[in-house]
Amino acid sequence: MTFSVSILATGSELLDGRVLDTNSHFVARELSERGLKLKRVLCVDDDIDELLAGLRQLTEVSQLVITSGGLGPTSDDLTRDLLAAAAGVSLVEFPNARAHLESFYRARGRVVDSTNLRQALLPEGAEMIPNPIGTAPGFIVRVGTSIVCSLSGVPREFQRMFNETVLPLVVSKAGLTETIQRRSFKVFGLPESLVGAKVEDLALSKEVTVSYRAAFPEVHVTLKCSGATRLLDEAAAAVRGVFAPHGFIFTEDPKITLLQSVHALLLANGLTVATAESCTGGMVGQFLTQQPGSSGYFRGGVLAYSDEVKRRELGVPETLISSHGAVSAEVVAVMAEAARSKFKTDYALAVSGVAGPDGGSDAKPVGTVYLGVASSAGVLTRLCFYASERENVRRYSSLAVLDMLRRSILGAALPDGYPVMKF
Amino acid sequence: MTFSVSILATGSELLDGRVLDTNSHFVARELSERGLKLKRVLCVDDDIDELLAGLRQLTEVSQLVITSGGLGPTSDDLTRDLLAAAAGVSLVEFPNARAHLESFYRARGRVVDSTNLRQALLPEGAEMIPNPIGTAPGFIVRVGTSIVCSLSGVPREFQRMFNETVLPLVVSKAGLTETIQRRSFKVFGLPESLVGAKVEDLALSKEVTVSYRAAFPEVHVTLKCSGATRLLDEAAAAVRGVFAPHGFIFTEDPKITLLQSVHALLLANGLTVATAESCTGGMVGQFLTQQPGSSGYFRGGVLAYSDEVKRRELGVPETLISSHGAVSAEVVAVMAEAARSKFKTDYALAVSGVAGPDGGSDAKPVGTVYLGVASSAGVLTRLCFYASERENVRRYSSLAVLDMLRRSILGAALPDGYPVMKF
Repeated sequence: MTFSVSILATGSELLDGRVLDTNSHFVARELSERGLKLKRVLCVDDDIDELLAGLRQLTEVSQLVITSGGLGPTSDDLTRDLLAAAAGVSLVEFPNARAHLESFYRARGRVVDSTNLRQALLPEGAEMIPNPIGTAPGFIVRVGTSIVCSLSGVPREFQRMFNETVLPLVVSKAGLTETIQRRSFKVFGLPESLVGAKVEDLALSKEVTVSYRAAFPEVHVTLKCSGATRLLDEAAAAVRGVFAPHGFIFTEDPKITLLQSVHALLLANGLTVATAESCTGGMVGQFLTQQPGSSGYFRGGVLAYSDEVKRRELGVPETLISSHGAVSAEVVAVMAEAARSKFKTDYALAVSGVAGPDGGSDAKPVGTVYLGVASSAGVLTRLCFYASERENVRRYSSLAVLDMLRRSILGAALPDGYPVMKF
Repeated sequence: MTFSVSILATGSELLDGRVLDTNSHFVARELSERGLKLKRVLCVDDDIDELLAGLRQLTEVSQLVITSGGLGPTSDDLTRDLLAAAAGVSLVEFPNARAHLESFYRARGRVVDSTNLRQALLPEGAEMIPNPIGTAPGFIVRVGTSIVCSLSGVPREFQRMFNETVLPLVVSKAGLTETIQRRSFKVFGLPESLVGAKVEDLALSKEVTVSYRAAFPEVHVTLKCSGATRLLDEAAAAVRGVFAPHGFIFTEDPKITLLQSVHALLLANGLTVATAESCTGGMVGQFLTQQPGSSGYFRGGVLAYSDEVKRRELGVPETLISSHGAVSAEVVAVMAEAARSKFKTDYALAVSGVAGPDGGSDAKPVGTVYLGVASSAGVLTRLCFYASERENVRRYSSLAVLDMLRRSILGAALPDGYPVMKF
């Protein structure tokens, strides 16, 4: 049986919606980094019967249980009583806990009263967990065959106590000596189901675990393997072989976003860029200026929301709009070229589409967006179609035109027959 | 025994830290608003034994259990099997579920394959819960003496299914007849601490509970009272008396955002607007075009990120920039007036500031932003200062200039001596 860790998150504030439980998520991430998945997370109220029932369920399935919360001085702080009852011992005052409390309050010009002193009472035989940044210490106590670690519920106290005391204990008890290695790929321009299908087709080594995350509209693929670097490298090369030749992988660094990739490419190549936006209304410009240092490449843009502004500010001929419509490859091409010439930049990006929920037609339903990228090589346009809510359409098309810019800079054209993107 | 509701949150991604469970928090808040506290939240892995054990624990203590997740088409989506097993019935294809799937995929130009059709299999005798914005429908099934409602784990699908189907069921089953009455106030332009202090000064009736929520940069104040409308009305009048005369309350409707307030004001008054943005790089335009129907007032804008664009496109004199700096009341005034005249609108908004993290000086530290609103009455400028991260500075100043627009339309000037906003 693999070593198993569960969490008992306690507190009314978690069940009445005042507080979102982020402590469990924090532990899940930390353990996952070391190849261990949490068994269960149970959230119960500050009620001794509920707490006892909850603790019992978790100690039955896990060798280590972490409790969060309930260590404060007030009458609804019941974790000390819970663990004393579960371990069948009394609460006794721990001199080092009392000394910590007294010095903590003294440093803040306050005196410890009898209510606050409750925090120095711990289950007899427990091991105290120091809380250097708060009042209530935690503790470790054995309940049946399980180890229970009780930590403060305040996130920064919880995290510090977890990192300093609980994590080393789990690593040692669970024998986590093998390091999990990973390779990450961030893909733009393919739906998660297609990415998944293409990776499944590779029939990678069983030693390598594959996970997917859709971080709309990006898809992140992570390969994990304990120990065997060669297997992982082979699997990574296979994944790269499928997606990299067509430029679908924009980074292999799990910390880099598409916006940061584009930012770095523009700066590294000393390129400048401008925008001409209709349905996105400024979102492309906002994305391009999100990273510090964006004045190194972004010059300016025109928000050409009305047709009149498209004509007057970007010189889109009235006849072009009346014959093809404002949402068309023809119009977006003129917008991109006009912005490039107006702002004297290396590149210019243009977007015009039907963001919805109204304004769609049979020929151009909601979600129809034309994208254009102008450069010294001319102008490239593309139709993308993403049927969703207004803000999703706008977000998707803003990122899609930035991805076109990335591809233009890298010379990574979309493969022949690449379809209009549909999710 | 009071009616009790618990949640079974399913999915590896919750236990390995990839995803934070926000669905349970959402339900906790919605139920709490109606005076009901969740009993337990249990998070278990996609494993049929774990799921069965978890479901059993919750149905033992709660009359209604909500499950989230596990309704997708892949092999680790086990919620349908779980509930069929727990209810002792078979899975059968629901024709309305199949029809929904087919039309959902058809609308996206895709064909439903046999894998996807798994989503049309529901426990025999279940009541289907429609999922208008996703593929997998949910369902309601009886397990022992409990009702189990299974919802999609995707937050926006989960929320919609909860609001449309589960919440009315809980309200009816739990007999939530005692109505908690509430009055909401959304405040813009004052920090939460100051709002709180001013409300505390009112010494409202003890029967009225006050809660605050900082929805950056808005502050929401909610007054609640069970039954006594008169007390609540008195308290509401007192709160209104403090904040309304100076225009700090932009709405008393809890569902309306600042962007929606501005949207409605522009449409109701038949006004048009344009923008000239520097440090926000398009965010003001993006906000102004977020609501459907924004073409009714938004004409266009200039993203004048570089000084050259400020000069050439907006006619900001070079001497003005060299004497006052691009981040100045003088420059922002010219930008606003130029945008108003270029786009021939009733109003024009301009923003120029130091978003950081670099570019600050002693005189104009990071967070210094000048805002301008031009109208037929002339141009109004304001300095706002919000020392924070780049994206917070940009977001705050974009919303602050929209709030200036709202005040201009309503003729609600800031009070004399209103300070540069510091949080």
